[in-house]
Amino acid sequence: MTDVSAERQPVAIAQRPTIPESEFAARLQRVQRLAESLELDAIVVYGDDRATMGAGHVRWLIDYFPHFEPIAVLVAPGVDPIAVTGPESDSYIESTSRLRGAIAVTEEFVHPDEEYPFTTVEPLASVLDRLLPSTVGAARRVGLAGSEMISPRLLDGLRQQATIVPVDQQYGALRARKSPAELAVIRYAYEIAQEGVLAAVRAISSGEVSERDVGAEIDYALRRWGAEGSGIDTIVAAGPEHTYPILHRTSTRMIRPGDAVILTVAPRYEGYHGAIGRTVHVGDVDTRLRDAREVAIAAQRHTAELLVAGAHAPDVDRAARGVVRDAGYGDYFLYTGIHSIGVMEFEPPILASFDTTTVEEDMVFSVDIPMFHTPWGGLRAENGYHVAPGGAVPLQTVADAIDIA
Amino acid sequence: MTDVSAERQPVAIAQRPTIPESEFAARLQRVQRLAESLELDAIVVYGDDRATMGAGHVRWLIDYFPHFEPIAVLVAPGVDPIAVTGPESDSYIESTSRLRGAIAVTEEFVHPDEEYPFTTVEPLASVLDRLLPSTVGAARRVGLAGSEMISPRLLDGLRQQATIVPVDQQYGALRARKSPAELAVIRYAYEIAQEGVLAAVRAISSGEVSERDVGAEIDYALRRWGAEGSGIDTIVAAGPEHTYPILHRTSTRMIRPGDAVILTVAPRYEGYHGAIGRTVHVGDVDTRLRDAREVAIAAQRHTAELLVAGAHAPDVDRAARGVVRDAGYGDYFLYTGIHSIGVMEFEPPILASFDTTTVEEDMVFSVDIPMFHTPWGGLRAENGYHVAPGGAVPLQTVADAIDIA
Repeated sequence: MTDVSAERQPVAIAQRPTIPESEFAARLQRVQRLAESLELDAIVVYGDDRATMGAGHVRWLIDYFPHFEPIAVLVAPGVDPIAVTGPESDSYIESTSRLRGAIAVTEEFVHPDEEYPFTTVEPLASVLDRLLPSTVGAARRVGLAGSEMISPRLLDGLRQQATIVPVDQQYGALRARKSPAELAVIRYAYEIAQEGVLAAVRAISSGEVSERDVGAEIDYALRRWGAEGSGIDTIVAAGPEHTYPILHRTSTRMIRPGDAVILTVAPRYEGYHGAIGRTVHVGDVDTRLRDAREVAIAAQRHTAELLVAGAHAPDVDRAARGVVRDAGYGDYFLYTGIHSIGVMEFEPPILASFDTTTVEEDMVFSVDIPMFHTPWGGLRAENGYHVAPGGAVPLQTVADAIDIA
Repeated sequence: MTDVSAERQPVAIAQRPTIPESEFAARLQRVQRLAESLELDAIVVYGDDRATMGAGHVRWLIDYFPHFEPIAVLVAPGVDPIAVTGPESDSYIESTSRLRGAIAVTEEFVHPDEEYPFTTVEPLASVLDRLLPSTVGAARRVGLAGSEMISPRLLDGLRQQATIVPVDQQYGALRARKSPAELAVIRYAYEIAQEGVLAAVRAISSGEVSERDVGAEIDYALRRWGAEGSGIDTIVAAGPEHTYPILHRTSTRMIRPGDAVILTVAPRYEGYHGAIGRTVHVGDVDTRLRDAREVAIAAQRHTAELLVAGAHAPDVDRAARGVVRDAGYGDYFLYTGIHSIGVMEFEPPILASFDTTTVEEDMVFSVDIPMFHTPWGGLRAENGYHVAPGGAVPLQTVADAIDIA
């Protein structure tokens, strides 16, 4: 049992950690150096408002959260960057981001049915000419971070001005190891996530509630503690049908005695995420559910012990799957469970069996042990760990196995 | 002053309106007929989890809300549709959508760093061969709804199997007039939005609060009343700097006497949106703010009077801009303010000056009178209207001008 009797007051705003301005200046320089090392004239960093991954690349670079309209930040060595975006975003970028550079509105971002009578729309070609005056068109080699997400119209526009090279891997690698300021922010994001889990436990304990009622209490706790949103929508999934799929949309189903309830809580704070997954047992549940949850928790603890500097990705992946397979649940471990967490809730390095990552100090991993598509439904056990000099340090203190009477 | 003393209990779940199953069957048939009328072999309906527009096309067709992985629904006349998606979404689609058809996982949706050892990945070519057995490759003509959003990888995959024709306009037009069930759901979405505005007023009235505190109370109210999320993130923007841009990210700034506070509240309920925008005055505010708000409200009322069946888009747009221009604020009316609202918070028909729409009964419009980039900041006045036989019926009752002492 987790003690949830004492609801804590949120940490005061002035005491919450933030990322200092100087860190953004250093990040820009690292992207400029990446361009040089890859012999690129520039790197385009794309972002949009898709819920799970859209903003990450851009948020890390200029602390900007796109909404409604996408953005692309054009970074070239030795000069200030230029952001290109749509007509509703220029002053929003100025007001909320750490961009030190110009902003241009180009046709590729204008909603085709909308009109903006007071906006100057500049051709993308002229923006690139401003950024890269000494090069022309197809002779330019430009890297692209966000190549899986970029809109076809913007990609077509860029291709007319340069040869485009995907650099998602290399760009993502720049943020694999976290700075002290990032670690402080991530720790606080986990603190928020934990408050969300505790709010869910209180809500379920209080009596007749639906999944959506519990979701409302979780999200309210996250917001009060300072979350700006979530890296993946809050999931409250109760009973065999709703826990069976990997993803679930929090519904109006009532929570009943005998239910296993998956909670997935992933707040975003200052652009960074914490993610905690719990499978809460309500009243007397089937012994298979108890056994499977014990196995998942054991797999998670074993995996965390291996998350030390110098570990190789396939070994960690194999260890997690091994515990689950040996207990007879291997076929339900459907996806790669060990992934980095930061400005995306799910980001590289991801420790798949084919991955070549060597774990380094100050990486932060989410260890998500999944069992889904089982005869009794499914479950998730997800915790965060900071790879510190002495080994993996847990980023949450809430109990792994939560039972509600 | 708006009376907010009596906080209402949310409507019981069983009493909330929903869209019946039969309506989804009818929608599928309409898309099949659209394909026939455009002489297309099939129509591909794309959706992803971008916050403001990603899910709309797919939600309308099969009541599915993509998350993490995108989806494309392939619709051909005379046969069941096939959904193509990623390995984490197949059982999620089965569990939560109204799709009556097969689901296939294809390579175009698989995250490049992830592995799914127990998933069968089918080539997109073979899925299209199953759907359209009597046609081959480039001879196929396939329409695409979501052409502005689709990922480059999926678009490339589709182009190898068919000639792709954007049909965003024609597909969107299918849902311009709302059914009685849709109108009931939209009315309830506005009721939720209104509860959000009232929660904000209570929060601001209660004393020392930040924008984010107010946002937390708004979102909590939306969730308790049944919102699944928002069509545009809740905006609480206080003071000249934060009200100046069209968009704002709710921040930790404290709300102070003398502030104008823009509230934009756009809950999603059963896939449909309500959107209310208010500029609340806290204490004694600058007379220019009062004057501008009066003008915006007058423009909105005048526009609503013109929203009758038979009206032409440019006339409505001109009327709204005319009131604002005549009062000397024309240069701040930055975007097209009158747009439809439904499964997207902002969707066609959009009544721009170049638009050819004739307003019809049972269309639903959001009339958003914007003033931004002004010397004193900015404001928004946004209301929803149902075009009924007797004229436009307001979808909210909350006061247009809210002052907090």
